[in-house]
Amino acid sequence: MRILTGIQPSGQIHLGNYFGAIRNILDMQEKGHEVFIFIADFHALTTVRDPEALRQGTLNAALDFLACGIDPERTVFWRQSAVPEVQELAWLLSIITPMGLLERCHSYKDKLAHGKEATHGLFAYPVLMAADILLYQSDLVPVGKDQKQHLEVTRDLAIKFNNAYGEILKVPDAYIPESVAIVPGTDGQKMSKSYGNIIPLFDTPKKVKTAIMGIVTDSTPMEEPKDPETCNVYKIYKLLATPEQADEMAAKLRAGGYGYGDAKKALLAAYHEKFDACAAKREELAANPAKVEEILARGAERARAFATPTLEAVRKAVGLK
Amino acid sequence: MRILTGIQPSGQIHLGNYFGAIRNILDMQEKGHEVFIFIADFHALTTVRDPEALRQGTLNAALDFLACGIDPERTVFWRQSAVPEVQELAWLLSIITPMGLLERCHSYKDKLAHGKEATHGLFAYPVLMAADILLYQSDLVPVGKDQKQHLEVTRDLAIKFNNAYGEILKVPDAYIPESVAIVPGTDGQKMSKSYGNIIPLFDTPKKVKTAIMGIVTDSTPMEEPKDPETCNVYKIYKLLATPEQADEMAAKLRAGGYGYGDAKKALLAAYHEKFDACAAKREELAANPAKVEEILARGAERARAFATPTLEAVRKAVGLK
Repeated sequence: MRILTGIQPSGQIHLGNYFGAIRNILDMQEKGHEVFIFIADFHALTTVRDPEALRQGTLNAALDFLACGIDPERTVFWRQSAVPEVQELAWLLSIITPMGLLERCHSYKDKLAHGKEATHGLFAYPVLMAADILLYQSDLVPVGKDQKQHLEVTRDLAIKFNNAYGEILKVPDAYIPESVAIVPGTDGQKMSKSYGNIIPLFDTPKKVKTAIMGIVTDSTPMEEPKDPETCNVYKIYKLLATPEQADEMAAKLRAGGYGYGDAKKALLAAYHEKFDACAAKREELAANPAKVEEILARGAERARAFATPTLEAVRKAVGLK
Repeated sequence: MRILTGIQPSGQIHLGNYFGAIRNILDMQEKGHEVFIFIADFHALTTVRDPEALRQGTLNAALDFLACGIDPERTVFWRQSAVPEVQELAWLLSIITPMGLLERCHSYKDKLAHGKEATHGLFAYPVLMAADILLYQSDLVPVGKDQKQHLEVTRDLAIKFNNAYGEILKVPDAYIPESVAIVPGTDGQKMSKSYGNIIPLFDTPKKVKTAIMGIVTDSTPMEEPKDPETCNVYKIYKLLATPEQADEMAAKLRAGGYGYGDAKKALLAAYHEKFDACAAKREELAANPAKVEEILARGAERARAFATPTLEAVRKAVGLK
């Protein structure tokens, strides 16, 4: 199965990203699927106006994903804009894209409601996303709640194109991962940059410690028994630790005489055990940006080898060749 | 001055096209301007759904313009889709294109009013047109009445882009040709395919003769004097003939004893005198489509040499590189 996913080159990744999405991607890679991941810099331009922020964000996204374990030998990993053919396919889809389909997209309306400027890029975003998916004849696309409708648009366009010009584009399916962890933030709400409640995946030990030590708990005194199921520290620990370690912490909390501070220390240790190797790898890569560029360039070359036949078939079908 | 113009690869060209547009292009070529002409096949896709019609239309447009005297040694002449980089620039303009600007375009609304399907391609057309113009850093763009607003959009986008990212794109001006002939059709209305009143530029001698002999005239008898200024035959003849020849026909009409049939015969002779060499050249090229492809490919190569630096500068400015 070919599974395609795009990642936004914006901002610092955190435990919520890792357990919500990255872990699933790694899982697919381990299972031997053809995983295609691109850094969506064309898309990012709809909201990022600072060129330096985009450049840095793109590099960071590459570092983050490679550090987490994306293996560029197995997984096709590239920068979206390095295969600009996707823009041509977006146009060739636009000619059969009903305006009504785009006008009904919630995401556009939501973005305007959140104060974004009503630009054509923002409006046309779902067509470019469809082109991203269809160019590589993807079978499956992991979709979060906010992307579900865009995948529907993609399917509609593929079907509409095939009806008009012949069976050329593969109609992709949504991939619903077996388990998507809901990762609580330091305040107990869903972990999200916009809530300011993240535990970063890659940052200084001091910042990580500050975040973990700042996890909100109730005021049950140290000596009293505590319910692990209402404890944010435990909930995050469970994601990081082995099942045995998690059971051990749950037992300690229930028994009493084990404080939230102790739990936080255990979480911090588990965090470092899990991510220190990734952080070291990230540092190594960050010191060698030319190598990262080389990895992305090689990925783009591999991606292009899939894109070219699709685009050629589409061009021929519509009469451009 | 670099003058850019796109031509639609649709249908048979006629005297109205020649005296309304082609003659001006040839004129600019003769004056030594840098003339850039592309066959707008990406645009045509917004209305042409038949691939074979598009292929044939594109080839015909190439034959027509080369036969009329476009000199591919001096003028850069290419198929739009052979420089697909224009689609990437269209996206990079989309990110700063206010939706309101596109929503206000009359041409989109007109097309819907004429029963065209409301597609995203039709809606996004002005952005692609802006990219066509800006990619080549054009100074001047000849615009008819229906394209005036699109050039305004292009100017707006260039200015907006430059304000956001630095002075990169040349803001083009509209080129208003010194004289645009209004060519009457065989029924006296403006010559237009949609009115079914054309005199074709390239067709069988029989069809040309039928069209010219079918020009509507009044019923003034042969022997009576006639007013050349209300005579459709004379109006068309004036475009084709030398001033001396035109004066001669005018005098004959005014004198009487010279019938409309005589005038039509003179027009037919003038038509053949002017266009037979073009028709022969067209036939020669049509027999050698590989040569036409070669000309267009060479044109695309030259066009790309202008497009690449623009696109590179734009990519760098927005942070893609």
